[in-house]
Amino acid sequence: MDNSQMLTNYVRKMTSALMNAGVKAVVISPGSRSTPLAYAFASTEGLEMYLQIDERSAGYFALGLAKASGDPVVLLCTSGTAASNYFPAITEARNARIPLFVITADRPHELRGVGAPQAIDQIQMYGNQVKYSVDFPIPENNRDVDDYIDRQINRILSIATTAPKGPVHINVPFREPFNIDFDMKAAPSTFVKRFKVTETLNETVVKELTTLVNGTDKGIIIVGEMPINFDKNLFWEFAEALNWPVLCDPLSNLRTGLSKSSKSLCIDHYDAILKSESFVKQAIPDMVIRFGAQPVSKPLSQFLKKIKPQTVVAIDESPEFRDPIGVVTHHIHSAAEAVLSIKITKTETAYSKMWIETNEIVSLITAKYSDTVEDEGAFAQLLFDHLPSGVDLVSGSSMPIRDIDTFFGKTVKDVTIFSNRGTNGIDGVVSTALGIQAARHRPTWLLIGDLSFLHDVNGLIATRFIETDLTIVIMNNDGGGIFSYLPQANSSTHFENLFGTPTGLTFGHIAAMYDAQYDAVRTIEEFKSVIPKLKTKPLRIIEVFTDRSENVKGHRKLWSEIIERIDLNG
Amino acid sequence: MDNSQMLTNYVRKMTSALMNAGVKAVVISPGSRSTPLAYAFASTEGLEMYLQIDERSAGYFALGLAKASGDPVVLLCTSGTAASNYFPAITEARNARIPLFVITADRPHELRGVGAPQAIDQIQMYGNQVKYSVDFPIPENNRDVDDYIDRQINRILSIATTAPKGPVHINVPFREPFNIDFDMKAAPSTFVKRFKVTETLNETVVKELTTLVNGTDKGIIIVGEMPINFDKNLFWEFAEALNWPVLCDPLSNLRTGLSKSSKSLCIDHYDAILKSESFVKQAIPDMVIRFGAQPVSKPLSQFLKKIKPQTVVAIDESPEFRDPIGVVTHHIHSAAEAVLSIKITKTETAYSKMWIETNEIVSLITAKYSDTVEDEGAFAQLLFDHLPSGVDLVSGSSMPIRDIDTFFGKTVKDVTIFSNRGTNGIDGVVSTALGIQAARHRPTWLLIGDLSFLHDVNGLIATRFIETDLTIVIMNNDGGGIFSYLPQANSSTHFENLFGTPTGLTFGHIAAMYDAQYDAVRTIEEFKSVIPKLKTKPLRIIEVFTDRSENVKGHRKLWSEIIERIDLNG
Repeated sequence: MDNSQMLTNYVRKMTSALMNAGVKAVVISPGSRSTPLAYAFASTEGLEMYLQIDERSAGYFALGLAKASGDPVVLLCTSGTAASNYFPAITEARNARIPLFVITADRPHELRGVGAPQAIDQIQMYGNQVKYSVDFPIPENNRDVDDYIDRQINRILSIATTAPKGPVHINVPFREPFNIDFDMKAAPSTFVKRFKVTETLNETVVKELTTLVNGTDKGIIIVGEMPINFDKNLFWEFAEALNWPVLCDPLSNLRTGLSKSSKSLCIDHYDAILKSESFVKQAIPDMVIRFGAQPVSKPLSQFLKKIKPQTVVAIDESPEFRDPIGVVTHHIHSAAEAVLSIKITKTETAYSKMWIETNEIVSLITAKYSDTVEDEGAFAQLLFDHLPSGVDLVSGSSMPIRDIDTFFGKTVKDVTIFSNRGTNGIDGVVSTALGIQAARHRPTWLLIGDLSFLHDVNGLIATRFIETDLTIVIMNNDGGGIFSYLPQANSSTHFENLFGTPTGLTFGHIAAMYDAQYDAVRTIEEFKSVIPKLKTKPLRIIEVFTDRSENVKGHRKLWSEIIERIDLNG
Repeated sequence: MDNSQMLTNYVRKMTSALMNAGVKAVVISPGSRSTPLAYAFASTEGLEMYLQIDERSAGYFALGLAKASGDPVVLLCTSGTAASNYFPAITEARNARIPLFVITADRPHELRGVGAPQAIDQIQMYGNQVKYSVDFPIPENNRDVDDYIDRQINRILSIATTAPKGPVHINVPFREPFNIDFDMKAAPSTFVKRFKVTETLNETVVKELTTLVNGTDKGIIIVGEMPINFDKNLFWEFAEALNWPVLCDPLSNLRTGLSKSSKSLCIDHYDAILKSESFVKQAIPDMVIRFGAQPVSKPLSQFLKKIKPQTVVAIDESPEFRDPIGVVTHHIHSAAEAVLSIKITKTETAYSKMWIETNEIVSLITAKYSDTVEDEGAFAQLLFDHLPSGVDLVSGSSMPIRDIDTFFGKTVKDVTIFSNRGTNGIDGVVSTALGIQAARHRPTWLLIGDLSFLHDVNGLIATRFIETDLTIVIMNNDGGGIFSYLPQANSSTHFENLFGTPTGLTFGHIAAMYDAQYDAVRTIEEFKSVIPKLKTKPLRIIEVFTDRSENVKGHRKLWSEIIERIDLNG
């Protein structure tokens, strides 16, 4: 074997082991040191290859792909700061439980720690943010190394896809020259297959859970963000047998789409409802069953933290069960599906009726919001009304996800909602949306604030290399809108300077740069005429100019109206 | 003490300790968790405060500030992925030896590892890329903690500024509420001062070095990138006593500016000269003394690696002396200044004359480059000819720094040249330039490729908040220009796809977005008429459209002409 053949064998071993283990897509950023692997990926059939020049955006693009497909996605970059740029997406993936397979090319040992260009200490460089990290051997002609690669790739991919799913890292040193033999195929893998156990709950667990449930008539189900393959019909069967109100975070995706259920148990306005003290007094549950992450709603968290229900069961596939408010009393260490197959039948109670009726009232009030108010909430509501069936909606952090929570209620429309809630960063959102679109091949809508859009404006570079069908609605309130809702806003000292941070930037120029269809909107009337317009280009940007103080006023007015009505009713 | 007073005491302790230890500037990114410290910095007199919304760019802005001022700079951000975004700049700082004091705000212990929003594992999160990392205690009313802060801040800043200088990290947990008492002052520090040793070389070292030098007539001095406070006059005294040719990397900043020396020993065309095999044969040195990093020139590295001079002395203040080519035989573990005070007097030799004369010849050939060629090299040369005295020039990685090496020869003009050569990343360059400009208050010019500009286009956000005087010359060859010079270009399979990566993007829209003066240039004639135009706005962008294959052709033609002439001569 000559050098090129040895190198070819090495990198083809890796790519075929990755594909054998279930990888379908790779996101590559250009670089020299990573050439052998880039060549191997590019010349492998049946693998989707995406390109992003900005590695930070590449990381989030891969995250979106993995999140929306449910499959692990490979990232490949060259040595040096390129690898450091993956860190934000890796952090989000670790906390959002998304399997990313990060490959960083590295210099060989003799060029490490000696001041060589583009050489940094890449060993374990992502620390605790990855589930596993390994430095691969330098390519050599060695059968033991071949067998190691076959198995190690499988092991690492198993780690990435075992609960809690998450990012893993391999660092691969290469010596020059980097050319491979394109005609040469990989030797067949000597590792054949991984079998996975099926998770079921034993009878003791079922019995204990049934006893707990039978001991109360005041129970609620809470569903936070769920993975893409969550079986909604199975869930509704479980919930309807139980007859408990189901508080559905938008990212549970239980609010939207046709299902076997009428969703009458679906409570989609708990965020507003739980602002009413009189309701809270009557609504104290004895038992809570939570699936998925803690929902975005702050009133819900405060409610639970205040009343500390006697029994709070968290179903969480990870040993690191999520409980930021310290109320969970039982952890079912399992994926949702194992619990959903349990049937516990109860009849409807006054308690669940109260939730459902109050939810109806709030739903009617909220629905009229955009008739009288002209703020981000109203624009968001009109957007959601307009969305056709068969699209995906990606939400920015901060206010967009909260407006979705408030204004995007139950609907039969097939709209899947995504957001980065692992760490709730405002970064990487444009790239995540594009990754989601690439995975699902459906029209994608992105609702995002101006700072968040600006932060990942480079996400748009991906549109130069892939087929795009994305509409971005930017709420431009010229700065950090969410801070206006926080106590910081009460102290005017340094507020605009440190939190408002108005950049004065608008995004028509970015739209032109990326050849996007562009509309600027200032009023509800304009928005109503713009939003249904035909999309004539792959990328469309609607920039809505709003006012931070008006947004706060509008939202607060709605909440007091809701509280008043609930109090009257109760 | 109430909660707000306790918090005020805690954060004011930190800010006053930082200032006491020599910090003059802080770069803040907006966020909620970091509010108490942001308030403390904002209400501290005598501290320069800068704002950047994109934390990745903020990191590089701080890097530029620290690099150009020679002082440590503080970075402050909120918890979560905000902190991850600092990673690229931290990596560069670690390798370029720049003191950054990174402060990440964090959630308190009870919100860590429980799925709380914006909570990631921030303990030691930057791993080996920082020199030190510590998790600070939660603010409390405790005299021991006060005393600890006074000392610990001083310790950590000492670590950052001790050779090799580099980034350090403190993680600071805060509990809500975040308001501080703006009227309250910090208690005086109980730590007073740090005294630092003066480094001198003992007589044995001086004797050994003198013996080595006296044993050869074929010696060269190589000077790579030097820190901003490098004493150039002292250097020239040392070099002129020695009478050895001085191979000056552009980042040594020995090529430019008035000095007590005529710079006749300064060899600025070794990159081209060492491409001549006949010259290399005659030029084999017995001894090399190198200051600073290994220069950017690849021919110089190959030359040294091939001939392995008998004695190669590296003067490097760090135990981690830089030697990517494995040729150093002696390491003087000291800052340059201690060595420069040694006087070893030698007479001029035929060997140094040969270097100087050959350099003259190449200088004359190179000077005429833009008369006949129309490529990036020619544009760069015209730019350097035009630069007025009293400005700074920041270089992108890849081709810009190489064109500076080739075309920016000796001059009395006061132009200081900067580039990120710790890891040679194409990222963060716009921000670094703006940080340098903020530190030096001189007009700044940035020469950069299109991919590099695009990568850090968000660096420009800083221009919304600070006074700017920056001219950016973008060499837009629509993709990764440097790859055309590499062996990858010989294999057309996948080349454009993986390495050329043409985005088709142009930057007139970005200029408009940031209200910059903009010119597009396609020919030498256009460039000649555009470049001397008056700058009428704080930010100016000149976009030069070039052709990747023409660039390679032009450069290769020059090199063969030079080789031919040297061979004729020799």
